Amino acid sequence: MTNDQTGNVSAPIMQTPRNTLQRARKRASYDRNLINAILDDGYVTHISAVIDGGIRSHPSYYWRMGDEIIVHGSRHNAMLNTLLSGEEACLCFTLLDGLVMARSAFHHSLNYRSVVLYAKPREVTDPDERMAALKHGIERLSKGRWDEIVKPSEAALRGTMILAFPIMEATAKVRSGMPTDDPDDYAHKIWAGVIPCALTFGPPEEDTNTSPPDAY
Amino acid sequence: MTNDQTGNVSAPIMQTPRNTLQRARKRASYDRNLINAILDDGYVTHISAVIDGGIRSHPSYYWRMGDEIIVHGSRHNAMLNTLLSGEEACLCFTLLDGLVMARSAFHHSLNYRSVVLYAKPREVTDPDERMAALKHGIERLSKGRWDEIVKPSEAALRGTMILAFPIMEATAKVRSGMPTDDPDDYAHKIWAGVIPCALTFGPPEEDTNTSPPDAY
Repeated sequence: MTNDQTGNVSAPIMQTPRNTLQRARKRASYDRNLINAILDDGYVTHISAVIDGGIRSHPSYYWRMGDEIIVHGSRHNAMLNTLLSGEEACLCFTLLDGLVMARSAFHHSLNYRSVVLYAKPREVTDPDERMAALKHGIERLSKGRWDEIVKPSEAALRGTMILAFPIMEATAKVRSGMPTDDPDDYAHKIWAGVIPCALTFGPPEEDTNTSPPDAY
Repeated sequence: MTNDQTGNVSAPIMQTPRNTLQRARKRASYDRNLINAILDDGYVTHISAVIDGGIRSHPSYYWRMGDEIIVHGSRHNAMLNTLLSGEEACLCFTLLDGLVMARSAFHHSLNYRSVVLYAKPREVTDPDERMAALKHGIERLSKGRWDEIVKPSEAALRGTMILAFPIMEATAKVRSGMPTDDPDDYAHKIWAGVIPCALTFGPPEEDTNTSPPDAY
């Protein structure tokens, strides 16, 4: 059992056949703290589900609250509605940390931290819980911002669906560090190493418009 | 019809019910040049499919060659084998460009460029085509690198499966620029704008190991 930042006690991550990595097992982890740390570092998840008998997938903004991933969208969103009807979702989260340049073509790789999560979501319906969830989604973009901005109108709230996915059946997969070449290849005079990368933020650009732009 | 960088003539992107955006249509595009530009800017795709009756999804390195997305992996990879048996894949590609800080909570958003692609892949089996594909996958990490490194062994080649997904039934979705607040909210004295972000690369870190590291 682990404690998250709210002081609540969390159940351990559940290991099932489908979230147990069969290959590259050394890279897998079922540790909730590691999984949470990866989830807290990203902004976009890829949600997949079967809709009308066919595979569907799309990117979405998300945030974590305790042991749940929160996704919101229009009440008419086909993916969210399908998931509330009981269909299972697979959510993928990936952070790219570097290009791994090995001595051999075969051992070139990427450094990354990823999470795959299987879950059926619940709809967040309680008005206070909904407002708390939306506040969290803003505050993780910029701490303190919720108190400065215009709050959601009744109409906006009515049109917005909020889904919470339990972080239970999840797998973290991580690669880090230098290449792993075949022993014989270390004798070659070939530059090898890692080109690190990260999502980085530039200086804020102020909106000087005084009315809505035409196109977006 | 458009010309890609190889001089070949490409068919237009195909619009079907499932890849035609029903909501936020202004953000959608079916232009092959825009789709290719987004695909060429990313390193990780999220591949989804139904495996053994259940939804599955995972991240993968990819590259584009002409009108196809190339993904490679172990010959034992469950996802790749399922797809070669005729199962349809959905591939998602997302690049995050900024956090959109509006005057109202409701109009906060992300700037992004994304592609969703539906496709059944073919296996690349011709030895010359396989080698050309692997070379392309290395060269897009670092131009000129293929000639410097140890080429794949026969054993490595035997264990590697290469799949090519036609870029035909695809949708680009893009949001860019400043927030779109409700007209009345522009009167408020609230900072609004965009915090731009991008995947950025740091200086290369040389591998000084003289033998394979223990863990990865």
